[in-house]
Parts: sequence; C-alpha cells; structure tokens
Amino acid sequence: MNFWKLFVAKNDRISRNIYNNISNNDTLIKEFNYGGKKIAIILNRDKDIDLYELEKLCDTVGWVRRPLKKVKTAIRNSFLIIYLSYYKNKQKKLIAFARATSDNTFNATIWDVVVHPEFQRKGLGKILINEIIKELRYSDINTITLFADPQVLAFYKSLGFISDPDGIKGMFWYPN
Amino acid sequence: MNFWKLFVAKNDRISRNIYNNISNNDTLIKEFNYGGKKIAIILNRDKDIDLYELEKLCDTVGWVRRPLKKVKTAIRNSFLIIYLSYYKNKQKKLIAFARATSDNTFNATIWDVVVHPEFQRKGLGKILINEIIKELRYSDINTITLFADPQVLAFYKSLGFISDPDGIKGMFWYPN
Repeated sequence: MNFWKLFVAKNDRISRNIYNNISNNDTLIKEFNYGGKKIAIILNRDKDIDLYELEKLCDTVGWVRRPLKKVKTAIRNSFLIIYLSYYKNKQKKLIAFARATSDNTFNATIWDVVVHPEFQRKGLGKILINEIIKELRYSDINTITLFADPQVLAFYKSLGFISDPDGIKGMFWYPN
Repeated sequence: MNFWKLFVAKNDRISRNIYNNISNNDTLIKEFNYGGKKIAIILNRDKDIDLYELEKLCDTVGWVRRPLKKVKTAIRNSFLIIYLSYYKNKQKKLIAFARATSDNTFNATIWDVVVHPEFQRKGLGKILINEIIKELRYSDINTITLFADPQVLAFYKSLGFISDPDGIKGMFWYPN
C-alpha cells in the first residue's frame, strides 16, 4: 500500500475505493469528478500500453485508423510515451496520450498528443506536456519540438513553446 | 575490385587512382573537380563516422561546438545518418552530413544538415536529402519533417518539402 492509498484509507473510507487498483507503476495525478463520480487519474510511462485502448482513444477524436503493428513499432521506438488513465471495474480506461521521438541527447519531437473529448479543457493536456518536458529535461535534452495544428497553437504557447523562432519553418514531405 | 574500379581501370589509367581506396561500404556518387584535381565523392550510411572529422565539418559552417560524447549518443540514436566524403592520401575527408530521428514507422525528422562551404551549390545537399527520403520511404515512413532556417527554405521546397501545410506550425521549447 503506497503513500496515497494509506493517506486516503486513513482519511476517507468512501473515496478509498477509487484508489484500490493503483499499482506501484502508477503515479496518481489528481482526483476528478466524472459523471457525478469521483475518479483517480493516474499517469504511466511504460510502453506496454493496451493498443486497443489507444485505438479507442484515437477514435474519439476522429483520427484515421492506423495499423496496430505500426503503432506498436512507433511506441517501441519512441524515446518516451506518457499516458493518463483511470480504473473502472479494475480495468484501466485510457483518457490521454502523447509520445516523443528523440536522439536521446539534443532534440526531441512530440507526436500524437490526444485527450479524450470528455476530459478536454480540464488541464490534462497541460499535465501531459509538462511531464514530457520534465522527462526530456531530465535527460538533458534542450530542444523540444512539435508540429501544432492552428487550433492548439495558443495551448502550446501557454506552455512556453515558440512558433517559427528566428524564422525557422516546420516543413513536411509526403509521398505523392 | 568492384564494378566502378574495374570500369575505371579499363578506361582511364590516371583517374583510376581516385577510386583506389573505395571499399565495399562506400557508394560512389559522382566525380568532382576540386582545386584542379578530380575527386570521387562517396556516400556512407554506417554509424562509425569519425567524430573529429564531423566536428571539423561543423566548424567550417560556424556551428557551436557540441560535446563529442553527446554527438556520439545522437548518432547512435538516430534512425539513420548519411554522409559524403572523398579520399585524400587514403584518409576519408568528410564534406557533407545529415541525420534523421524517427519512430521507425510513421514519422521522421531530419537534423544537422551540413555541407562544407567549398562544396556548396554543387548538388550535394540535394543528393543527401534525396538519399534520406529514399531510405525513409524504403522503411515505409510517410511523414518526413524538418525545421528549416529562412535561407534554406527554397532549397527544401525544390525537393518537395512544404512549409506549414494546413497551417501546421513548427514549435520549439527551450530551457530558460
């Protein structure tokens, strides 16, 4: 029983239940009201994420489906992945995800940032990105980059990201 | 003796010398007039590049020096590196370099593109980037990205790169 479980067990017999499934790999992030119920949101970094849960999450924001085999390869070869979830009937429900590629020392690029629509505008995206920054900085990576759609530009600016510094432009090449 | 050496040996006793050191790991790219002499430019992909040669090359374009240990880590953790060189007195002289990070399946980002000033505007940058695109496409990677300084925007556009497609912006985060 870790600190949080102990703390809660001592202080609140009812809300203790929401922490029951939290394991040592889980980091408790915050309590949350969801559909009238309290849930405990946890953060994980391990790469054995449930790919079907991830696909379901990406479906909720309307992303084009991608072959699970390729998703697995991408996760295995990302420098880090970070995701948020909560337990419902002992099952982890994924509600946010992001990953970063990197050369492990100079640069990193953040990809595939997704937050479940029912959990958007509640500070979870900020938790996710700040956690990525923290982990990359821990590895002494100084240049953290990403490619932002117009509608999330302000969000990333609020977290300290700068667009086109010194006229540097993000460029893309796609097959014809 | 590979095809090129054989071909040259049969046809030109003098220029044969410029191919003498080419090994099976080297890919001959083109002949080149340099300071009144003919040189044979070769392409390599192997990661055991001479880091001091790379540092010298980066010095020629005025890049800030980086710890060799970090450069080594970056190369080891890049998805691919590509460089051009020629032999001078049996020593490989590095004249161009580029590398890419990737999740090995969806996206890649090109970093550290450098061409020796004496070899710029001769098509070598194009050879380098087209070779990277070819290799990434061979791994079925469809989204190839980079961050371009204003003065090389036109160069990358000429190779098929698009800046800010659909309003997507390149963003950077640096430590304070």
